[in-house]
Amino acid sequence: MTSDESVRRNAFCAAVDWGTTSFRLWLLDAGGAVIAQSRGTEGMERVRERGFETTLAEHLDKIGAPAGTPVIICGMAGARQGWMEAPYRPVPAPLDELAAHAVRVETSLGDVRILPGVAQIDADAPDVMRGEETQIAGLGVQGDTLVCLPGTHSKWVRIEEGAIADFATFMTGEIFDLLSRHSILRHVMDAGEEGDETTFLAAVREALAEPDVLTTKLFALRAGPLLSLADPAAGATRLSGLLIGAEIGAARRRLAAESRKLLLVSSGRLGALYRSALAEAGFDVDTVDAEETTRTALHAMARRLWPSAEENAR
Amino acid sequence: MTSDESVRRNAFCAAVDWGTTSFRLWLLDAGGAVIAQSRGTEGMERVRERGFETTLAEHLDKIGAPAGTPVIICGMAGARQGWMEAPYRPVPAPLDELAAHAVRVETSLGDVRILPGVAQIDADAPDVMRGEETQIAGLGVQGDTLVCLPGTHSKWVRIEEGAIADFATFMTGEIFDLLSRHSILRHVMDAGEEGDETTFLAAVREALAEPDVLTTKLFALRAGPLLSLADPAAGATRLSGLLIGAEIGAARRRLAAESRKLLLVSSGRLGALYRSALAEAGFDVDTVDAEETTRTALHAMARRLWPSAEENAR
Repeated sequence: MTSDESVRRNAFCAAVDWGTTSFRLWLLDAGGAVIAQSRGTEGMERVRERGFETTLAEHLDKIGAPAGTPVIICGMAGARQGWMEAPYRPVPAPLDELAAHAVRVETSLGDVRILPGVAQIDADAPDVMRGEETQIAGLGVQGDTLVCLPGTHSKWVRIEEGAIADFATFMTGEIFDLLSRHSILRHVMDAGEEGDETTFLAAVREALAEPDVLTTKLFALRAGPLLSLADPAAGATRLSGLLIGAEIGAARRRLAAESRKLLLVSSGRLGALYRSALAEAGFDVDTVDAEETTRTALHAMARRLWPSAEENAR
Repeated sequence: MTSDESVRRNAFCAAVDWGTTSFRLWLLDAGGAVIAQSRGTEGMERVRERGFETTLAEHLDKIGAPAGTPVIICGMAGARQGWMEAPYRPVPAPLDELAAHAVRVETSLGDVRILPGVAQIDADAPDVMRGEETQIAGLGVQGDTLVCLPGTHSKWVRIEEGAIADFATFMTGEIFDLLSRHSILRHVMDAGEEGDETTFLAAVREALAEPDVLTTKLFALRAGPLLSLADPAAGATRLSGLLIGAEIGAARRRLAAESRKLLLVSSGRLGALYRSALAEAGFDVDTVDAEETTRTALHAMARRLWPSAEENAR
């Protein structure tokens, strides 16, 4: 037996974050350490034809996971249009009860469970999440906390007494993408150039001051450079500042009436932008790596689901 | 000589509205009546390769315009990336001076002139128009008036003492198109079904009441039907109501502090939607057909540019 094989025999579970456009799998030991990992672009949208089971089996095979390794999955794989529906849990949704509501998928692989998402069943503010509830469960939050998870569809979540109490989704990332690639504003996008923070924060301040900024200020991004009143190279930076500022301003009004303490679940360039915009808006920010908190949560939930498997893997 | 030829000999000018994605040409007699017309999709964007002169010549030929007929053009053909730049006139821009600032294009055709656009050279609210200034000139406005011209990029314009004093552009039509065709909201768009007015006006009212509606309410269009809290067939109607309501609310705050009288330059389904949304917002609306006012203005401007040609055509 090679040492590689011996390490893999310590595998306790495979943890999977299966989103709309991405797939991430970690083979974890009983302590939660990563033995091996695999990533792909086989998100829910691309997988439908090839099949979820085939895709999962290939990734498990690629990293040499032992046959029968139990698998825990969060994300869009549990959507109605995903692999198998894991019905939403309504708010207030206790974080430590999520694992108990995972659905079991019949496969030729090991025990495979998909975690539920969370829904806000409120006709005035209907909202859903799939995947973020798991990231949040991994934060180990004690007491009341406000959490911001930026992305294609940014989520702002209030945690109260260990449960997801209230949340709101903002299409910030998707709207940035559509406007910068497909609208008339594509003519003033500086192809990936890093804008300066002064320009970014000025746009954030404008958006915080004027809630209707997405209605009133977008066309000016094009007209300003046309009239030599604005630097054409600052277009993407300003668009990003206006969108992120509008999100933070709206979320502050709706969810952050009292506290200014906030957990930011993000990393890289986007995390840095949000951190500086949130500070501008008066928030006291702690940053947590998004992938790490997902893995932490999936491991903790797997330990609840398979206590005896954990024993065996030790 | 056929009667058809005899009619064409009465041609005084060709009037052209040359936009980003469309081309419209009318052969007019000295009184402004339409002798013949031609339309196409050879907007500025498609024409660049084939050439503007070739395209114009083909349309003139197709309707049998006499050789040497003078041509007056408004719209994007006068943009920097168009046929020949007709520099923007700054606000306040007197409507009866637009024709005098038309640029003359050297062609093998008759006398060809392109009208200027109008620019708001204001670092806080930079804005531009090309084509709408001509529509507005055709309205024959006396005194101070507020004008709304809905479309891909809706314009709201304040006329004072016969000049364009102040204006604002809203990307309403373009954002509707991007969100309904390319975003996650495409899943709740009711493929062209006509929504009911009650649903539309409810969305308009929400947007008028909450200026940050484009930040806060879009994702709910998807989440509502997912949670059976909203009719999935109402998605496009609600999106349209939110976007049009947000535009009207912002324009009302910025441009309509005093008066509630408004001229709406539009027609068809879009005109009807704006008319009912504007009434909901408390405006007293008169509607003018967009094409008719363009033609009226181009004819009046041609009479100024070519008084002797007009004599000859009578």
